[in-house]
Amino acid sequence: MSVAAARPVTLSDFSSCEISDALIKLGVPHGGHIPDISMFSPTPPASTRSGKICAPAYTVKMVPANDNTSPRLSAHFVDTVTPGSVIVIVAPPDTKNAVWGGLMTAGAQARGAVGVVISGRCRDLAEHRAAGFPVFARGHSTLGQGTFVRPSAIDIPLVITPEGVEGSSGAFPSTEVLPGDWIIADEDGVVCVPQSLVDQVVELATIGREIDARCMEDIKAGKGIQASFLKYRGK
Amino acid sequence: MSVAAARPVTLSDFSSCEISDALIKLGVPHGGHIPDISMFSPTPPASTRSGKICAPAYTVKMVPANDNTSPRLSAHFVDTVTPGSVIVIVAPPDTKNAVWGGLMTAGAQARGAVGVVISGRCRDLAEHRAAGFPVFARGHSTLGQGTFVRPSAIDIPLVITPEGVEGSSGAFPSTEVLPGDWIIADEDGVVCVPQSLVDQVVELATIGREIDARCMEDIKAGKGIQASFLKYRGK
Amino acid sequence: MSVAAARPVTLSDFSSCEISDALIKLGVPHGGHIPDISMFSPTPPASTRSGKICAPAYTVKMVPANDNTSPRLSAHFVDTVTPGSVIVIVAPPDTKNAVWGGLMTAGAQARGAVGVVISGRCRDLAEHRAAGFPVFARGHSTLGQGTFVRPSAIDIPLVITPEGVEGSSGAFPSTEVLPGDWIIADEDGVVCVPQSLVDQVVELATIGREIDARCMEDIKAGKGIQASFLKYRGK
Repeated sequence: MSVAAARPVTLSDFSSCEISDALIKLGVPHGGHIPDISMFSPTPPASTRSGKICAPAYTVKMVPANDNTSPRLSAHFVDTVTPGSVIVIVAPPDTKNAVWGGLMTAGAQARGAVGVVISGRCRDLAEHRAAGFPVFARGHSTLGQGTFVRPSAIDIPLVITPEGVEGSSGAFPSTEVLPGDWIIADEDGVVCVPQSLVDQVVELATIGREIDARCMEDIKAGKGIQASFLKYRGK
Repeated sequence: MSVAAARPVTLSDFSSCEISDALIKLGVPHGGHIPDISMFSPTPPASTRSGKICAPAYTVKMVPANDNTSPRLSAHFVDTVTPGSVIVIVAPPDTKNAVWGGLMTAGAQARGAVGVVISGRCRDLAEHRAAGFPVFARGHSTLGQGTFVRPSAIDIPLVITPEGVEGSSGAFPSTEVLPGDWIIADEDGVVCVPQSLVDQVVELATIGREIDARCMEDIKAGKGIQASFLKYRGK
Repeated sequence: MSVAAARPVTLSDFSSCEISDALIKLGVPHGGHIPDISMFSPTPPASTRSGKICAPAYTVKMVPANDNTSPRLSAHFVDTVTPGSVIVIVAPPDTKNAVWGGLMTAGAQARGAVGVVISGRCRDLAEHRAAGFPVFARGHSTLGQGTFVRPSAIDIPLVITPEGVEGSSGAFPSTEVLPGDWIIADEDGVVCVPQSLVDQVVELATIGREIDARCMEDIKAGKGIQASFLKYRGK
């Protein structure tokens, strides 16, 4: 878990949890967390950190197929993805069809995208896993996209609403993802880091990891969690 | 992914997604998809196509145990299953108990059934996995069936309602499963093919696969998704 | 599946399902089942019984962080866990943050706890799995505990409410877990056995297993489920 000193430390050195912790310290409400999105590829649940992604967001908004007023795209949204980015797709709430499949994984890999995070569903699981392409989603489906929803905009701010939040007593806020925000996703979930905070997050996550490592050493030695937290976290 | 030419192509050559695509083309609303049912056995999530089932439906309807007006069965529903079929069970909505367990898997295997698809829950996961028997369900439980629900009818049309659809903004319709309809289930989910459409589905899925294979080749070669779709799908 | 005769039979010899069956026979409503909690560590879904836990409950109640009227703890709840127990945590409903992470697993292992069952979420999945520490929860998150909820009481009776039960047509009751009640958790789910019933549960589960083993033998031999149940269960 130690960070090598020979090269600069970057966001990609940290887990989604460590980054959420840093964002909480920076006052970002709910630590940039986008709830209830899980790793579907590579084969979940990964017992290692394989499948983790850390890259700037390329955003895609889907609307219902019968929405005739929202804008239309002139190109397929995968063909225009920025190499090295993670595709973040928001489908309309409660969509039962997939908005990501095997041909899109092939196209995304050909363009050099590093993964996809979907507030919605995916399909063709076996193909993503065989391709080793990271896919994070709310669920799976056998249904494709065309009949039900359509892409309407790319490179725009997205608002990602937790599923079922209407009926929830403990309302969790929506997360805003701007194009170029950093997305970190692993088996614990998905976090969005605003571009302006990247340096501060790396700094705080580095400190946080050092403190956690000391706590872990003491805790494993049986010195107690409270005593370790008091000693190294000061509370 | 190519279909061998030496024997007739059948439904079982295709994935649940390919079959949904064909049903959509045939105008079946929502492509025969039964949402939110996942593979629980063999060990999910399968990284290969192992566990896929494709067989005619043998239907079973459960009612609450305290329902004294619905019919009763004279035999255990597993004892009367047609060899070579997939058992499709609908439990009342929000049932927290399982309606399928280890003894039923043993009985189903003794009768030659090929798997079970449950709009409801299963238990004894380790036993199904050890037996290599495919079990698709909405969830798991420690509770058995008897105290909570009872089988009321077999070989009747089933109406499978998506869970939580009442409060949903994007209402997804119920799926009707008739006895003898073909059920295809794999890691992407469950699809029902009406008997009358089997030949057309095979025909369209064969064409769809050929087109997808050409698209895939071009997409992997970096020719773009939009250009490939235009070239091979005509749009 | 047979129980060795050379040592006393105990609760830990049985699966969560067998124990639920015994509790149902003893008239415990809903067989002590706590719904919708799944194994997150070791790597789920386990294809074997690894990760199963069976131990007395050490109970922990969390309240929202902004609850200033509920009691506060003077020690960290993990530091005071009874060796050999399973930690049972109830978080407020719909909590999107985790209430269990890697440092707590280290602390719990240092204290000799055998696992944790959470009506709520966990994080740091890779750490629990690497440590081989059983973690059962409703979901995962990247968010830690401190900002959102806080522990308020230990060693008190817990009331565990099924998620989303408000809107449910088939209302499932809450489960009460008292300190010292036995918790059995495996890949099928979580069951709570009141201390006063342990001996009776073991007795009934032993009988139940013998009967099931005879049924299984006949069912595998093709003698039918109904005939086997009638022969060995008397109905």
